[in-house]
Amino acid sequence: MHTHNVKAFGTAAPENDLELITIKRREIQPKDVEIDILYCGVCHSDLHTARNDWGGSAYPAVPGHEIVGRITGVGSEVSKFKVGDLAAVGCMVDSCRTCSSCAQDLEQFCENGFTGTYNGKDKYIDGQRTYGGYSESVVVDEHFVLHVPENLDLAAVAPLLCAGITTWSPLKHWNVNENSKVAVVGLGGLGHMAIKLAKGLGAEVSLFSRSAGKTDDAKALGADQVIISTDEAEMKAVLNKFDLIIDTVPYEHDINPYMNTLTVNGTLVLVGFIGEFENDAVSTKPMIYKRRSVAGSLIGGIKETQEMLDFCGEKNIVSDIEIIKMQDINEAYERMLKSDVKYRFVIDMKSLKD
Amino acid sequence: MHTHNVKAFGTAAPENDLELITIKRREIQPKDVEIDILYCGVCHSDLHTARNDWGGSAYPAVPGHEIVGRITGVGSEVSKFKVGDLAAVGCMVDSCRTCSSCAQDLEQFCENGFTGTYNGKDKYIDGQRTYGGYSESVVVDEHFVLHVPENLDLAAVAPLLCAGITTWSPLKHWNVNENSKVAVVGLGGLGHMAIKLAKGLGAEVSLFSRSAGKTDDAKALGADQVIISTDEAEMKAVLNKFDLIIDTVPYEHDINPYMNTLTVNGTLVLVGFIGEFENDAVSTKPMIYKRRSVAGSLIGGIKETQEMLDFCGEKNIVSDIEIIKMQDINEAYERMLKSDVKYRFVIDMKSLKD
Repeated sequence: MHTHNVKAFGTAAPENDLELITIKRREIQPKDVEIDILYCGVCHSDLHTARNDWGGSAYPAVPGHEIVGRITGVGSEVSKFKVGDLAAVGCMVDSCRTCSSCAQDLEQFCENGFTGTYNGKDKYIDGQRTYGGYSESVVVDEHFVLHVPENLDLAAVAPLLCAGITTWSPLKHWNVNENSKVAVVGLGGLGHMAIKLAKGLGAEVSLFSRSAGKTDDAKALGADQVIISTDEAEMKAVLNKFDLIIDTVPYEHDINPYMNTLTVNGTLVLVGFIGEFENDAVSTKPMIYKRRSVAGSLIGGIKETQEMLDFCGEKNIVSDIEIIKMQDINEAYERMLKSDVKYRFVIDMKSLKD
Repeated sequence: MHTHNVKAFGTAAPENDLELITIKRREIQPKDVEIDILYCGVCHSDLHTARNDWGGSAYPAVPGHEIVGRITGVGSEVSKFKVGDLAAVGCMVDSCRTCSSCAQDLEQFCENGFTGTYNGKDKYIDGQRTYGGYSESVVVDEHFVLHVPENLDLAAVAPLLCAGITTWSPLKHWNVNENSKVAVVGLGGLGHMAIKLAKGLGAEVSLFSRSAGKTDDAKALGADQVIISTDEAEMKAVLNKFDLIIDTVPYEHDINPYMNTLTVNGTLVLVGFIGEFENDAVSTKPMIYKRRSVAGSLIGGIKETQEMLDFCGEKNIVSDIEIIKMQDINEAYERMLKSDVKYRFVIDMKSLKD
């Protein structure tokens, strides 16, 4: 396989800062497009992968799976894109395409495991992991490349590719519409997109917050109501209210108080926490007495991601972002750990070319 | 309110055996029917209520909510029944009829609380709790009375009113059909009905069991497969297989191994355990990585119960039972605690008249 070198920002070890490195990209295959990366969003997974927080990181690690850019090359069999098109790539760059999940446009649940945009197993370059969007360009099979509506602020589109689809997919799967009452737990990158997208779908949207400090921000994002989850009277006032709760909190927490705020047949869907409820007992009573569910959801399929982007184009929905230079990424990680960002950092990739 | 005395079996205190007592039944109201009770199934809830295991029991306590019999009287406005009809009563004898759950035929989720067939708050006789089916007769609003198919063994119909509907409701709610793969956890009163009903709906049905001892019994009930849940290879062979798992185990247990056997979008529904997963951490990974759910389900609505009975009539499905006399109830409770029954005790209420 012919390759070419491109500049990237990555790390050679968990304890290192990210720095300028050189990585190889494959030459364009018949179904591939090459994308000049213009912006890349910064997701918590980037940081966890760079630092090997979840184990399994390979090095050098080049994070980034909220990629937007412009097509600079297309393979001979590419039909969806032409040179000059805007394009986006999210968390996946490949999957088996043949299993029952892939056949249902649920590549995120590929039975043979999808290929992550970074730290995945590269199918083309032996022994190499995939490298993400903290780089000048990327070569991806067109099936995993999305069209970007021309009317949106391109930098602010980037977070839709992970934070957006991660919250959109459960909203659609559980049929949120203008008759729905939706609540969101946690106001970060995922939470703020959940509010905007649920509102865009016409739902009545509430935010659960532990303090009143986020009320103005949540309302500015479109929330109809903020419920202080430590206030017994406020929690009691929303008993049996919500059809769907999108829980974006990324660490172990007690879900029981939220369960009681679901209506009959309601679902609390976890999109942020990938661990075990060890210290907080999960009570079955709220489930049994109102046929409520706890579910999980993982990003979304490619078709669904395109639908989300098209919807955002129609409704003029983008992420609230803070633009940084590539060279500021290590500082940005530290600020993310303190939740000091409203609500997503996006790297202006021009800075990598400086 | 005029009342009349009827014989019943009940207990005056948690530590007492059940014994012959006299209770009052209200006179027939315009919408009421009076049922001469012929058979009454014995549910674990009967025992827990008699012994105040869950707290909240009032005394005297007269259990029994799997009631079948024949109509002996009808009120002036009764339209569904006439004297001489077969009839059945399950876990509910009333609800508010006006809330959104009741309006959707989900009386079991009545926002104002349904009236339990026993230990409920009697709406007619001040300060009295409702008394269940361990009695000669019962007076119930016709809305909560079911028609019984004439072709079925009447004694074996009784357990359908609780064990049957409790497993039928989730099978229907989660759309089990001839393309479904269903697994059942636990082979008792609920579990054996889950197998029969899922099979009746055309699904492929498996039983999870901790030992091979139940294989023949499960297959005799219609199970296609028995999976020994302590056998790693057998568990691995059913990874990602089931659309729905009906978990009937009535005490805290580890659900994580079962979660991994659900397919994408699959649901594990708890119908037996009404407590907290305190010692067994609930892992979110299997939920998130395949969009699986954990849900609860509680008996079923009246319309759904009638549909279940009609279905059982068509398919010739009844419970496997052991008939006892009313006077044997205390011994039966002891045997139930040892799971020494295949699969449900049913009291021949003639014995109460002796």
